[in-house]
Amino acid sequence: MKKIIRERIESLREVMKANQIDAYIIPSSDPHLSEYPAGRWKSRQWISGFTGSAGTVVITAEKAGLWTDSRYFLQANTQLEGTGIELYKMALPETPTLTEFLIDELDKGMKVGLDGETYSAAEAHTLQKALEKKDIQLDTSKDLIDKIWTDRPPIPANPLFELPVEITGRTVTEKLNDINDKLHEIGADCTLLSALDEIAWTFNIRGNDVEYNPVVISYAFISENETVLFIQPNKLTMEVADQLKKEGVILGDYAKIKDYVAKLPAGTSILIDMPRTNVALFNAIPANCRIIQESSPANYLKSIKNEKEIEGFRNVMIKDGIALTRFYIWLEEQMATGEKVTEISATRKLSSLRAEQPLCISDSFNAICGYAGHGAIVHYSATPDTDATLKPEGIFLMDSGGRYLDGTTDITRTIALGKPTESMKKDFTRVLKGHISLAKCKFPVGTRGSQLDILARKALWDAGINYLHGTGHGIGHCLNVHEGPQSIRMEENPVKLAPGMVLSNEPAMYRTNEYGIRTENVILVREDSETEYGKFLSFETLTLCYIDTSLIHIPMLSVRELAWLNKYHQKVYEKLAPYLTEEEQAWLKEKTKIID
Amino acid sequence: MKKIIRERIESLREVMKANQIDAYIIPSSDPHLSEYPAGRWKSRQWISGFTGSAGTVVITAEKAGLWTDSRYFLQANTQLEGTGIELYKMALPETPTLTEFLIDELDKGMKVGLDGETYSAAEAHTLQKALEKKDIQLDTSKDLIDKIWTDRPPIPANPLFELPVEITGRTVTEKLNDINDKLHEIGADCTLLSALDEIAWTFNIRGNDVEYNPVVISYAFISENETVLFIQPNKLTMEVADQLKKEGVILGDYAKIKDYVAKLPAGTSILIDMPRTNVALFNAIPANCRIIQESSPANYLKSIKNEKEIEGFRNVMIKDGIALTRFYIWLEEQMATGEKVTEISATRKLSSLRAEQPLCISDSFNAICGYAGHGAIVHYSATPDTDATLKPEGIFLMDSGGRYLDGTTDITRTIALGKPTESMKKDFTRVLKGHISLAKCKFPVGTRGSQLDILARKALWDAGINYLHGTGHGIGHCLNVHEGPQSIRMEENPVKLAPGMVLSNEPAMYRTNEYGIRTENVILVREDSETEYGKFLSFETLTLCYIDTSLIHIPMLSVRELAWLNKYHQKVYEKLAPYLTEEEQAWLKEKTKIID
Repeated sequence: MKKIIRERIESLREVMKANQIDAYIIPSSDPHLSEYPAGRWKSRQWISGFTGSAGTVVITAEKAGLWTDSRYFLQANTQLEGTGIELYKMALPETPTLTEFLIDELDKGMKVGLDGETYSAAEAHTLQKALEKKDIQLDTSKDLIDKIWTDRPPIPANPLFELPVEITGRTVTEKLNDINDKLHEIGADCTLLSALDEIAWTFNIRGNDVEYNPVVISYAFISENETVLFIQPNKLTMEVADQLKKEGVILGDYAKIKDYVAKLPAGTSILIDMPRTNVALFNAIPANCRIIQESSPANYLKSIKNEKEIEGFRNVMIKDGIALTRFYIWLEEQMATGEKVTEISATRKLSSLRAEQPLCISDSFNAICGYAGHGAIVHYSATPDTDATLKPEGIFLMDSGGRYLDGTTDITRTIALGKPTESMKKDFTRVLKGHISLAKCKFPVGTRGSQLDILARKALWDAGINYLHGTGHGIGHCLNVHEGPQSIRMEENPVKLAPGMVLSNEPAMYRTNEYGIRTENVILVREDSETEYGKFLSFETLTLCYIDTSLIHIPMLSVRELAWLNKYHQKVYEKLAPYLTEEEQAWLKEKTKIID
Repeated sequence: MKKIIRERIESLREVMKANQIDAYIIPSSDPHLSEYPAGRWKSRQWISGFTGSAGTVVITAEKAGLWTDSRYFLQANTQLEGTGIELYKMALPETPTLTEFLIDELDKGMKVGLDGETYSAAEAHTLQKALEKKDIQLDTSKDLIDKIWTDRPPIPANPLFELPVEITGRTVTEKLNDINDKLHEIGADCTLLSALDEIAWTFNIRGNDVEYNPVVISYAFISENETVLFIQPNKLTMEVADQLKKEGVILGDYAKIKDYVAKLPAGTSILIDMPRTNVALFNAIPANCRIIQESSPANYLKSIKNEKEIEGFRNVMIKDGIALTRFYIWLEEQMATGEKVTEISATRKLSSLRAEQPLCISDSFNAICGYAGHGAIVHYSATPDTDATLKPEGIFLMDSGGRYLDGTTDITRTIALGKPTESMKKDFTRVLKGHISLAKCKFPVGTRGSQLDILARKALWDAGINYLHGTGHGIGHCLNVHEGPQSIRMEENPVKLAPGMVLSNEPAMYRTNEYGIRTENVILVREDSETEYGKFLSFETLTLCYIDTSLIHIPMLSVRELAWLNKYHQKVYEKLAPYLTEEEQAWLKEKTKIID
């Protein structure tokens, strides 16, 4: 494999030379700037062998580099070994950014190339501006990978299906009206949707084009007068096509989006979400249109779950809780009887227990099942080569989720498989304190996630510990397990938390080669109270699964933290017990018993 | 007065008409975009009668409005009554922004005017962009106030003095080298300084041109080859002029800055801090220069205090602590003996006690001395009309500071003048919990103030309370009591907290018409520790003054919070006692005694 990678890089260098490109950027995305692209667009993985979800490769005549974030430092290190590609650890003070690297490596007059279909207009413009300072050109018109990737997969053409209004809570017409209202407020005549989850949400369609993400490869144009869904014709059943037409949607050919955009009448005000629109599509907009650079209204509207969607989330949490309870009972039994369990077999077992639940379609992402030291690899994915056997000792981290027709789950639990050490317990309790602090906080309307992030980290920071990923990401309703625009992170995000938003709450800590600890629940933003100082919001924890109390160093919890935990455990038991056997009930009763 | 204000507005409307201006904006700043301008530039106060430090007036043919922030809602309400000027409360969801108001009020083709000397290039560009959308013009070339303000004060021409290197810690040459190094890093040939505190810091000069702010009206041009200080010639003594020349500084005429800028050679790369440069000066830069829009390096360098400056801060805290101790002893005696004390007489007493301290020049700002309900007016300033007499009951808030040659102080204490109610004590303790949480936090290198802000608010938010001002502002070294770029606020500020930065820590809460509570100390960012997770920073509290424990509801404090308070009080006593009389020592001993 390492040799194949080196050969591919050499082929690319030849094509670069032929095209007078001095540095070529291969990002990890698709024309829709998806976090997880379909196989056709896994160019970065193809050229580098690195399988992580985030990372960008740059190839010059002499050098090759991969930029990725802390979640993937360990994995990238292993996967890049022997490929000649150097790892650039993003966000570390000593690491040059990709742009700094280019400016440093290239001389005046040289040219950087990339495939504009897979690069956002926002990033392309920023990059161009920075390169211009040193008189370096940027050519976004060349898909050089396509020239050397001979067995490249085609655009996925899986059938799609309609999600009924009984599940989505709102019809396509209602959603289009909401979007057009927002466009009107902003002063735009129309908008282009490129992000697949926005399109799936707007048109109440789901598909199977990307693993785990029930999206449909498509674009959409929305205005008061005309709404066009650009999609490969072979994806549509007559039934869905009829339904969409009934809601006033015109069906266009996926391959024709640029032609359509190029014909927009002069003077059209078009709202473009620059980070969510690829630069090739952006460049197709006629120069005599007025571009309004704003966040996509559909993206925001999608993040505010309606009553039906919230009801769906509550339902799936019960189903998921049942599957999880059964999984942890099974695991305990296997450990007690000495049956062999590995990271992969555990993952399969949990998937199969989820699959038994009504309306469960699949996992919502590739589960992270990390025993002992593997738990410290943030986005670890067990392979037959690494697949560790679980022993009745140490710490076991499992981050998994289910995709149901009526919602999406994402949960991490860390449990002790034997008697934990004091240091494990202290680490676990620090993470738990952070989890509870965020879960029970109250904040004024207008608060951003970045303001709350420290609540999840404070107990860790006090001990000189930190985790370098976000604390909370948005979660789609029967959609992507990662969605925007809401987040709870150290990094600034101007989006204000609003009632109806669903996020994860996942503080963590990692001891390299020893263990990883993460405690993750899904939380819902809701109205809390109104005082003379204004309206306040708070979170409701939706996830229903016990937290391993054997890992808690009880003296480190305050009375209020203990009260939260006991109340949470009481709720977990009450919500799940009706669906469990007597034996399972007894087991869960013990796991959720009150601690003083 | 109200009548005069109405007449002035009418005169302005006439001049607006003559100049074909449909809306005129009068901001509160000067050509240096100072927070507190000299009298000549108090146009906004002159036209409206509103004396707050922040606020912008807009006059149209029919309407007049003042936009100000929550600190001034109550004050503005009172001062605007009868003037015909409507109050627009900024940051409330129902309030249109000034820009929204203009777009709403004006028709296509109309014109907005303002004096570009008093409006930042950043704000002018943003405003222009927004107005363009509705085809409204912006004319930044007209100082209409000057045409009607017949007895307008001249530009202040007070002498300046040099601050010796024994106090500043670095010579002008060293500071210029630091600035040029930063310019080089950024790729700029030169920069223009407009901000008066940056210039005072860079050239080690101080003056008396703005009340409380020891700055000198001036501009500066800095490059590796040529450094020019633009200043009114009558401000300079021979001695200071010689000293500056010795350090390679060329002296230019304040009135000639635009002529100088207009002659910059083609191709010059000039760094401009857009929010800190007025748009009239910005427009003087030749079109063939390359403008690099970046934060001013001098502003950042100034915020990182060197060892000498930190030593100065520690010194002034002792001096200030002595003055404050004596003040609170005096106040207690007056209350006990029934002597009359008013808000104004208390302020004078404290000023005079500060003035007794070595190197004290003046107060660092107009003290906020608010008894009972007045304490709830965030930037209250007692006038003979409002001057309340203190009674041995209720709560007394005093926010004051000293400007010393070797540093600046800013402190707020809230004390009980009689037996406080339970509700007062609970409110006070909530504020104190926030104060302590921020004071004792530890955070990784790279953390921004907006991430920490919630620590100061959390106990208040838990109770449905909030304060709408920042938690911490930067503080200059023998310079402005408010300085950037560092801050701790709800609002995002990309500046990372760095060792050597000095800030305030001032959580608060206000019960309208009842009382205000604020507990403010000055804190210094310092290196804390290094772990496998990176370097951590923490704060050292510099201010030395007791906190009124009679206002604490002790059960609400955790063991750790109590420990912080006891340790702080022990330090206050130890640092101040050597300078106090035996009687004063005994009093302070009692005020700082350990609580369990």
